[in-house]
Amino acid sequence: MLLPYLNSEPTLQQLLEGHAAIAPHIHRTPVLTCEALNKITGAKLFFKAENFQKVGAFKMRGATRAALALTQEQLSRGLATHSSGNHAQAVARAARLFEVPAYIVMPENAPEVKRQATLGYGARITPCAPTIEARQTTLEEVQAETGATFIHPFDDYNVIAGQATASLELMETVPDLDDIIAPIGGGGLMSGTCLAAHGVATGMRVFGAEPEAVDDAWRSLKSGTLERNESTNTIADGLKTNLSPKTFAIIQAHLQEDLLVTEGQIVEAMQLIWSRMKIIIEPSCAVPLAAILRNPEVFEGRRVGVILTGGNVDLQNLPW
Amino acid sequence: MLLPYLNSEPTLQQLLEGHAAIAPHIHRTPVLTCEALNKITGAKLFFKAENFQKVGAFKMRGATRAALALTQEQLSRGLATHSSGNHAQAVARAARLFEVPAYIVMPENAPEVKRQATLGYGARITPCAPTIEARQTTLEEVQAETGATFIHPFDDYNVIAGQATASLELMETVPDLDDIIAPIGGGGLMSGTCLAAHGVATGMRVFGAEPEAVDDAWRSLKSGTLERNESTNTIADGLKTNLSPKTFAIIQAHLQEDLLVTEGQIVEAMQLIWSRMKIIIEPSCAVPLAAILRNPEVFEGRRVGVILTGGNVDLQNLPW
Repeated sequence: MLLPYLNSEPTLQQLLEGHAAIAPHIHRTPVLTCEALNKITGAKLFFKAENFQKVGAFKMRGATRAALALTQEQLSRGLATHSSGNHAQAVARAARLFEVPAYIVMPENAPEVKRQATLGYGARITPCAPTIEARQTTLEEVQAETGATFIHPFDDYNVIAGQATASLELMETVPDLDDIIAPIGGGGLMSGTCLAAHGVATGMRVFGAEPEAVDDAWRSLKSGTLERNESTNTIADGLKTNLSPKTFAIIQAHLQEDLLVTEGQIVEAMQLIWSRMKIIIEPSCAVPLAAILRNPEVFEGRRVGVILTGGNVDLQNLPW
Repeated sequence: MLLPYLNSEPTLQQLLEGHAAIAPHIHRTPVLTCEALNKITGAKLFFKAENFQKVGAFKMRGATRAALALTQEQLSRGLATHSSGNHAQAVARAARLFEVPAYIVMPENAPEVKRQATLGYGARITPCAPTIEARQTTLEEVQAETGATFIHPFDDYNVIAGQATASLELMETVPDLDDIIAPIGGGGLMSGTCLAAHGVATGMRVFGAEPEAVDDAWRSLKSGTLERNESTNTIADGLKTNLSPKTFAIIQAHLQEDLLVTEGQIVEAMQLIWSRMKIIIEPSCAVPLAAILRNPEVFEGRRVGVILTGGNVDLQNLPW
């Protein structure tokens, strides 16, 4: 056990300790700028390029941070999770890093490309029916059999602390940001971003960005209680999940505003980043730029940090 | 006139002077590495990412270098060229840099996206029939009318010296390369790469890479005289042109070997770079990696510099 196991909201000191511990195991991703996008938006944008992170997404940070908070005995029995996306690959990769088994429960209809990538990191995949209930039941069975520890994709302070390190690095590279913006799915990245930003600079404005089609966070912030998505009909496949109690509480305390975007705006922002910045990002990753483009008056003339979350795209099925 | 006009093969000293002069006007592009591609190829690859260059391609270097070798009077009458590709945008962008007019002769069937990009840099476009003869006649008419100076895309020592600076930067960042590889189209980049590499390190092996479908360089090197492509049936749209007397002479004197690749190998290498490195490159740009993948025994265990030439792709028309 290299890091304390976090049972409550991490302090800035704990975020920094966690960053030092995971730093040898992750990439320090570059911060990119783009004259053309600055001109289009009227803001100065600083993109933290987590699409270049190991496994192609920021999820590697949280999974690694969580694994480092386990005892040696826990770790030796392996890591488990249910996911069809980037978190599955991150848990598999973190397990391989520490040379322990990874057990991933994955819905039968998960894209073959994601399945192959997860297998490529040496994980054992257990298929399940594509429902939340089947995922949880199957995961419990796997845990009962193996004794592996479940790494939740976001409702875990250790994972949240890991995701916070993307913003820590961004603010170290660009010390005078006015604003920071990240997409909201389950809220792990968003809540980590909140804690890091206000830990470092209490005056920084922290924005969330969310597809209209899966606006549970927007409605939760409005009603003051956890709301759920009624459908998951968005191309931003990483943002279909609902907030959890832990992530909602942090986001509610820190967020300036949650900005909604349409599906068309997501595709347009994604194409802009591909064609102007020459980098591959996944649809979820385009949501913050879409929000900036939709609300130029909010960001005009300001120095804005944008977390580019990941670059895992099925090149055979692009949304245009 | 900030640089001497080059009438013969540039020396290393002249390449370095040219680099110092253009440096404020171009991006120093990053050198990227990729564990996954090192594993697949068995070599250590260092990618000079000119897809992140201004106008999205290395061509900005040569056009800027050539403009800086003109007298103030020449420059004030503007720059001219015929091109439907990256060189058109580079000449337009260089002209805007020095606040002089750009006159681009472009075949009527040029992709709308390239036409718009060139217009976006403020150039005047003169359409012509899609033949070599029409291009040249129209260009002569434009020159007669305007007095603008023709910047040849490659058969010009000033342009060649500009393209050489990509390798100069790469070797400065990674001083102990064993090999360097670039694609061959008209040969401007390839001959610049030869002069830079052997100027800095006489023992370095310099490789070219070329599609089988447009193998004029391969046949020219074999026969010892300039050969021409009989068709231009390749997805590597930047490599359809033939070598010129100046570029052939330099390549003939320096090249270790010209490696051929099939169309399928180009697509495969392009997909590998997109999916593993998360960056956008154009088909021409994938040709060197395709050559390394086809000839692993040539590069195994070696430190290989790879020039990624550009990232201007029509996202609506991908080759898969």
